[in-house]
Amino acid sequence: MPKPAVQIDMDRLKALLGGVNRFGFHPETGGYTRPGFSQADVDCRAWFAAQMQADGLEVWNDGAMNIFGRFGPATGPCVMAGSHLDTVIDGGAYDGALGACAALECVRAMKSAGLEPRTAIEVVATSEEEGRFGGMLGSQAITGQVSQAWIEQATDADGIRLTDAMRSHGMEPSRILSSTRPEGSVKAFLELHIEQGPVLEQERVPIGIAEQVSGVCYLELEFSGIANHSGTTPMHLRSDAFAGLAELAATLPDLIKEHGTDQSRATIGHVELAPNHPHTIPGKATFSVILRDTSEDVMRSLKSGFLESANRVAGRHRLRFRSEERSWLSPVDLDTGLADRLAVLAERHGLPARRMPSGAGHDAQTMQAFCPAGLIFVPSRAGISHAPEEHSDWKDIEQGTNLMLQAMIDLAG
Amino acid sequence: MPKPAVQIDMDRLKALLGGVNRFGFHPETGGYTRPGFSQADVDCRAWFAAQMQADGLEVWNDGAMNIFGRFGPATGPCVMAGSHLDTVIDGGAYDGALGACAALECVRAMKSAGLEPRTAIEVVATSEEEGRFGGMLGSQAITGQVSQAWIEQATDADGIRLTDAMRSHGMEPSRILSSTRPEGSVKAFLELHIEQGPVLEQERVPIGIAEQVSGVCYLELEFSGIANHSGTTPMHLRSDAFAGLAELAATLPDLIKEHGTDQSRATIGHVELAPNHPHTIPGKATFSVILRDTSEDVMRSLKSGFLESANRVAGRHRLRFRSEERSWLSPVDLDTGLADRLAVLAERHGLPARRMPSGAGHDAQTMQAFCPAGLIFVPSRAGISHAPEEHSDWKDIEQGTNLMLQAMIDLAG
Repeated sequence: MPKPAVQIDMDRLKALLGGVNRFGFHPETGGYTRPGFSQADVDCRAWFAAQMQADGLEVWNDGAMNIFGRFGPATGPCVMAGSHLDTVIDGGAYDGALGACAALECVRAMKSAGLEPRTAIEVVATSEEEGRFGGMLGSQAITGQVSQAWIEQATDADGIRLTDAMRSHGMEPSRILSSTRPEGSVKAFLELHIEQGPVLEQERVPIGIAEQVSGVCYLELEFSGIANHSGTTPMHLRSDAFAGLAELAATLPDLIKEHGTDQSRATIGHVELAPNHPHTIPGKATFSVILRDTSEDVMRSLKSGFLESANRVAGRHRLRFRSEERSWLSPVDLDTGLADRLAVLAERHGLPARRMPSGAGHDAQTMQAFCPAGLIFVPSRAGISHAPEEHSDWKDIEQGTNLMLQAMIDLAG
Repeated sequence: MPKPAVQIDMDRLKALLGGVNRFGFHPETGGYTRPGFSQADVDCRAWFAAQMQADGLEVWNDGAMNIFGRFGPATGPCVMAGSHLDTVIDGGAYDGALGACAALECVRAMKSAGLEPRTAIEVVATSEEEGRFGGMLGSQAITGQVSQAWIEQATDADGIRLTDAMRSHGMEPSRILSSTRPEGSVKAFLELHIEQGPVLEQERVPIGIAEQVSGVCYLELEFSGIANHSGTTPMHLRSDAFAGLAELAATLPDLIKEHGTDQSRATIGHVELAPNHPHTIPGKATFSVILRDTSEDVMRSLKSGFLESANRVAGRHRLRFRSEERSWLSPVDLDTGLADRLAVLAERHGLPARRMPSGAGHDAQTMQAFCPAGLIFVPSRAGISHAPEEHSDWKDIEQGTNLMLQAMIDLAG
């Protein structure tokens, strides 16, 4: 071990996360509700900024409400580390908040050990990662991936405009565009996040090092048949929209076998039948299909294979068939050099880790377009996330945060 | 042709059906809404009774609001003929109403031809056949298949009690039980009804003679898995309630092949997913299954085969599985002698007819427990029923009604 035994302080990290999670806690559900630009989110950011100020960091926020705390040289490029503080409605205690708190704890640990980095370290609490307004506003603003047109039209599920939500807190939306960092000003980005999936827990590995982030293809389909009496209509004369949907859905495992990889995911999560009455053959089925893979070619192949199946099944069941691509997010390859470096550091410090893809989207994938980005996962109990039951063990968090600390020291010198 | 050429008068029948359908018509949907004991239903019955009175029939109603019009001898058993006047919400013009009107038209045709029956004919407009309160109240009351306890607890989907609905029209619910006819007082029951299925239309046969009425097994099932992130959860680690439902639903054709007959029907008409969100693996699927056949043994075999499949699929997808039998209606064999007689009469009078089962429930099946019951079908366009699009051609109706007329003459002498 070539470095001094700098270690993170778990009690201090727990207290910091507990402080963040006083904002937006709902005792009746046990969940946390801090959607981007809600009062709880804004209050939480102010509190987090005050903590960093108390630590003696240089603290400021940009026009997108990203909060920064800088440690080390006042000028020159930085190593940036952190994650988001906003949550989904009734989300868990760890998604995002843990990453922001872990980054600050790493800086605190360096300060406690008297380590002064050659390259500045910036702790960041990014804003609006959960997509209340349909994007990852904070990291997109930092990396120049937001347009004025998008800002003007962005609304949440309740029809509230991003611009109105910001102005209600005295923030000026036009300042978002001025938040873009100059090229070369961020040497690397590090994010620690809960896995939100079951792989690490199943394999009993405390640390995941993400290599890619899956792309997402969101299709909405509609099968239209004939709603009819369930008793009088013989099976062979039916145009049963649900029977078609079921047959199609049952082909998903084969679709992945034929067109996919072990990183492929196919999910039918939303289904509406009409008339949706027990004694009536369903005349219409509207449903979503989410296809994911880490390769864009595989995604294309999954999509065309799925639509071919849908077409074939619709024909067999005498259904009209309509499909719409609601969104297409391309997969992102995270920086290989940085992932390699994280793997070397993990091994050097005796931290068990495995390389893996990320099935969910994260700020790190947005940052990757701007600078090398590294994404460290810690296990999620039962893979559950976006729910009050979300949980990660402190023993695992400790190991993941120590890897981030070693990477920070390594990158910032 | 041994009988005088008595013929029904189609213009008179059209006018009668048109008169009935002035009640409960909704111009915006084109549908008819006369649920049992609604104002439209009560008004319609009073109008129908007045028509029969004008025809010189002896007219009365019983305690269940069945309306009777008697033609011929004042005493002794009768041949009863008719159907119901109530409809589902936004139903069609023919379901029920056509049968009551056709029966009265047959009596009118006999009267016009100067035919006086040896056995009395009673035209009946039965009440509450569509099951607003969960039964077939009218024919059940006539045949003594209603209990005081059932009357007291019967409520509609909106929680309105049968007793309150009756009292709001000045009717005394306790009189329902006094409506049961004495044993032997009805020699036979004849009902003409639209098929509500596509078989006659497909086969271009204007008349169906029902031999059995299918039984109905209504199961409600619930698959419980784990709602989780559609991106982070690998396919082989999912407990996807909808994937299980789809796999199960896709086995229905094989279930019928293995356990059923060409009269078997299996329908999944109602599906609710939770959380029902595109990006989340469904954690719960609640769904209905309706199994029908004309043989009770086959129904039992379909049910046990289905539940075995459900259990197997649940195991494969790591789902908890709960099932509840919501109702079980046994199949009914209609009187063979009467069906044979209808077939002979059809052939003798040059009316093309085929024997067939009934997939839907009708007053005739309730009457069969009390007296021989015959059920005549006329084709339904595209098999559609319980909808404003319900339609039967007058040319077909004419042939079906003429068969009823011949049967009435034959049975009443």
